[in-house]
Amino acid sequence: MKIILVGASGTLGSAIVTRLGRRHELIRVGRQSGDLQVDITQPDSIRALFAQVGRFDALVSAVGSVTFAPFVEMTPEAYQQGLQDKLMGQVNLVLLGQAQAAEGASFTLTSGIVSEHPIRQGSSAAMVNAALEGFARGAAIELPRGQRLNVVSPTVVEESLEHYGDFFLGFKAIPVAEAALAYERSVEGAETGKIYRVW
Amino acid sequence: MKIILVGASGTLGSAIVTRLGRRHELIRVGRQSGDLQVDITQPDSIRALFAQVGRFDALVSAVGSVTFAPFVEMTPEAYQQGLQDKLMGQVNLVLLGQAQAAEGASFTLTSGIVSEHPIRQGSSAAMVNAALEGFARGAAIELPRGQRLNVVSPTVVEESLEHYGDFFLGFKAIPVAEAALAYERSVEGAETGKIYRVW
Repeated sequence: MKIILVGASGTLGSAIVTRLGRRHELIRVGRQSGDLQVDITQPDSIRALFAQVGRFDALVSAVGSVTFAPFVEMTPEAYQQGLQDKLMGQVNLVLLGQAQAAEGASFTLTSGIVSEHPIRQGSSAAMVNAALEGFARGAAIELPRGQRLNVVSPTVVEESLEHYGDFFLGFKAIPVAEAALAYERSVEGAETGKIYRVW
Repeated sequence: MKIILVGASGTLGSAIVTRLGRRHELIRVGRQSGDLQVDITQPDSIRALFAQVGRFDALVSAVGSVTFAPFVEMTPEAYQQGLQDKLMGQVNLVLLGQAQAAEGASFTLTSGIVSEHPIRQGSSAAMVNAALEGFARGAAIELPRGQRLNVVSPTVVEESLEHYGDFFLGFKAIPVAEAALAYERSVEGAETGKIYRVW
């Protein structure tokens, strides 16, 4: 399969490269690194990416940033970052990619455990992750030509504890290689509209 | 209790007026009708509303529009309507209202069954409704001074079948008065971070 991997250089992305790269042709996409570059907050940048890639069999996205801050310090503007980056960036990868994706192609996006298990400073993450899961349920039933759409919702991974561990005190961390399994399952499997919780 | 009801003139809002108006002082808010007006897509309009209301004990929101269209006909811009109206409009009612809400005040927002049970043309509604539910779980644990936040997720109501019935073929409709009960339960109860599913 020809698989577009957006966020290939990240912690999750690197583990997905290891997992999927053994059997498939990966096109590694990053903001500044990789085979091709994309700014997912800009629909025209996503369109330019697909114009370079041509037909593909799967797209995996392991990207997106949101603002973490105490709720009473959040602002209407601070919520827009998560909405335009992690949420609409990933939504637009599906929306603008489906027309040239192959029959039966799969899309796999990334949400996160905060969707269901909130943490302090995580109101934007909870909103954005839940939105991605709702979008996947909604869009999966309308994708054309047998295309599929799933979301992987990982908990915090051991390799990120140095950066995010203080947000997730008391949460059981998993090795990122275990999270990568869920992406493989989405790509190689036959389900659609599913949320793969990895925790 | 002094209760702000945003969307008081709508189908849901009218039923909530009947239910809550018997025991409480309601401030009916609409886009153009009611005691006070607000455009929930404009944070400054929300700030002006709260400046007029002063301290309050509960806010109930039964408003918000999203774009319904087949997925392959959606555009990045079409998703923005639901994000800036039904989602951020309601989020901002909580965010910009909490500072002057009373100790123990409650906020009750409205999502909808499409969050969990998708329908054709409903990818934006599924995304926005799920986002509201994630936001409520996330923000509820950080609200100050014992304030609470819940979401009511109604199915289609009998009184709206004329307008929305074709989207919900096969769904069991409920009388809108039954949906109104859930708002009363959120306001009068003690729970927070809950999704009240009415279907």
